[in-house]
Amino acid sequence: MTLSFGQNGVFFMKKALLRCKTCGAEYGADRAPFRCACGEPLDLAWNGFGIEANERCQSRRYAAFYPFAAGEWRSLGEGGTPLVKLETLAKELGLAEVAVKNESANPTWSFKDRGTASCIAHARALGYTKVGTVSSGNMAASVAAYAAAADMEAFVLVKGNVADEKLAPIAIYGPHLLRVAGPYYELYGESLRLGAERGIYFMNSDVPFRVAGSRTIAYEIAEERGFRVPDWVIVPTSAGGNLRGIVNGFEDLRRAGLTEKLPRFICAQAANISPIAAAFAAGAARIRRFPDNETIAHAIDNPFPPSGNRVLAELRRLGGAVLTASEGEIVRAQADLARCGLFGQPASCVPLAVLRRARADGIVAEGESAALVMTGSGLKYTAAFAAHRLEWRDCDLASLPAYLK
Amino acid sequence: MTLSFGQNGVFFMKKALLRCKTCGAEYGADRAPFRCACGEPLDLAWNGFGIEANERCQSRRYAAFYPFAAGEWRSLGEGGTPLVKLETLAKELGLAEVAVKNESANPTWSFKDRGTASCIAHARALGYTKVGTVSSGNMAASVAAYAAAADMEAFVLVKGNVADEKLAPIAIYGPHLLRVAGPYYELYGESLRLGAERGIYFMNSDVPFRVAGSRTIAYEIAEERGFRVPDWVIVPTSAGGNLRGIVNGFEDLRRAGLTEKLPRFICAQAANISPIAAAFAAGAARIRRFPDNETIAHAIDNPFPPSGNRVLAELRRLGGAVLTASEGEIVRAQADLARCGLFGQPASCVPLAVLRRARADGIVAEGESAALVMTGSGLKYTAAFAAHRLEWRDCDLASLPAYLK
Repeated sequence: MTLSFGQNGVFFMKKALLRCKTCGAEYGADRAPFRCACGEPLDLAWNGFGIEANERCQSRRYAAFYPFAAGEWRSLGEGGTPLVKLETLAKELGLAEVAVKNESANPTWSFKDRGTASCIAHARALGYTKVGTVSSGNMAASVAAYAAAADMEAFVLVKGNVADEKLAPIAIYGPHLLRVAGPYYELYGESLRLGAERGIYFMNSDVPFRVAGSRTIAYEIAEERGFRVPDWVIVPTSAGGNLRGIVNGFEDLRRAGLTEKLPRFICAQAANISPIAAAFAAGAARIRRFPDNETIAHAIDNPFPPSGNRVLAELRRLGGAVLTASEGEIVRAQADLARCGLFGQPASCVPLAVLRRARADGIVAEGESAALVMTGSGLKYTAAFAAHRLEWRDCDLASLPAYLK
Repeated sequence: MTLSFGQNGVFFMKKALLRCKTCGAEYGADRAPFRCACGEPLDLAWNGFGIEANERCQSRRYAAFYPFAAGEWRSLGEGGTPLVKLETLAKELGLAEVAVKNESANPTWSFKDRGTASCIAHARALGYTKVGTVSSGNMAASVAAYAAAADMEAFVLVKGNVADEKLAPIAIYGPHLLRVAGPYYELYGESLRLGAERGIYFMNSDVPFRVAGSRTIAYEIAEERGFRVPDWVIVPTSAGGNLRGIVNGFEDLRRAGLTEKLPRFICAQAANISPIAAAFAAGAARIRRFPDNETIAHAIDNPFPPSGNRVLAELRRLGGAVLTASEGEIVRAQADLARCGLFGQPASCVPLAVLRRARADGIVAEGESAALVMTGSGLKYTAAFAAHRLEWRDCDLASLPAYLK
């Protein structure tokens, strides 16, 4: 069964447009312009919308939105993740609903798989046989896995100081894995430049089709709630691509006539590395490079996010907020979520930490609803265990009865 | 929308029956008989069948099968996992289809969540407030997580020799975690005995409602394939509960008139610990305790599986097979699956290893189809990385161009 809304159907690359929301420039998607000439990121423009209600995974359920022929996708089953309602936490915070979008239930256990699937389809549509990315975490594993599934060569560039044990979960998928010494922040641009030169499609953090993959997070949240959008959607923010994609997704739903309003968005950052929060508070239009501090929320430790300016503009346009959490608040949020049965990596738990703050500050009002995006699995960053007081007891079979009560 | 087949509707505990397939005895599900008086395990009897086609997660999509009121479930979104078709491997093996049911896309990243969800619903229906399990792996984390979600006390008993770092991913959910010195194999029965005495519902590996949760793996495989069953379904087998549940699930589908035939089943074991294979080969009706060998497939290292006899009987009744894989074959299968984008823990990869053997031995014929159950995430057992030749290179920004080609 197909439910179609708006302008539905399969488009081809030449008809699909990438648009710069900042300067208004448009580009065809039949080549791979990863950023606008003005320096800001690009968004995939509206391609119509439809829902294949019998399909679970994003590449089939929401195929109508994407400008790919069905054969271009190489899906591992990304998307269709649970939205889990936490009643005890909602009550404690005086909210009508707290729901967690558990993105750790993706094929490589993070939200990155949505954008990677969409980028792989785009790369295949354009005839690429080589792909790459710059990441030492979720995106690295995701790109390595999807490249393997698509039988493409993958080049994964990681920071020079990454420990060997962090490389194994990427290397297992068989990419060319390069640990690059020198200034990490130069790798983003340099990889795009070299990729263009050498025919490697670098699907970095905020390239247009990665951001396009995140739109389905919004679609699924809305579907699961019967197309009533929550009052607030809170997203852990590093490069800024995921938040941009989720904003676009809710705008798609409204344009398709499926929802009436937009949620308000909160960009959630670790206080220790919070360039978007600093610029937002200062009323600036552009972010500035933040110091290279440490944070337990390693998956969002980006001191100079490439979509930072765009995120600022989106939040101002839509009346959103940027909030930060201290290291202690992040650890507490990770424990709180685990005590609800959801074990997210520390970055994934920043939304709950900032929700507490947003309630204390009155930004989120009593009786409202909030959806928190839990971006990846707690198994991804076992170093965080050291921050918790974890308990167990030793006994023997004879003394066991004394402990079971 | 509800598609209903056969006898549909919500049953209550007193109407639901647990049946011993071995001696034919029946028990009401209104108390918690975890095994038959004859010593063999029990199965939840047919409760009717229906599919809520708009729901993804097992507790809503397949609720009609289970004898619970909707309010008893405390779901974290288990089920609805991807079935991923591996075309290159199928071609290499001369098969029409090789599909992997990726159970690592569950809330705690293993298939155990299905059975845990069903046990929690049963425990709640019977008025329990305390639950427990005996496991140091997937089941321990799953029970700890679901107990947290249901706001129940959990007692998780692990082997005396388990290392501290294996306990953290269980402890994070906040259970009573007990490391019990002494003979591990006695813990299964002792926990059930103490649980009955003290009002703790021990949802061990093959208790009836855990096995009942595994039925939905069969439902989903069949649905994803348009109700054409694959020729073969291959399941990594430890206690035997998962295989029993999947067999029951395919029988349900046939009884509901949705499928015409049953697949044939292969019980996949690590050669190093293969009590069911040994008994099957010897034509014995009962398994014997296997030596406590080591295997990289730690999640199925059960030398005396409590459902071993029942699995033997089921496979003989249905014309299945029991096959084993060597340590080297398991490692190779793990690498092969990762090179298809699927990173399973070693035990999860045993089905691919035995499929290769089944093809070589002519058990699985050319042109047939096989579904492999990948039971848990590769992130669960990082010790396995040491068995692989994983590669990366160090370079610097200046030399990077030489590596990108």
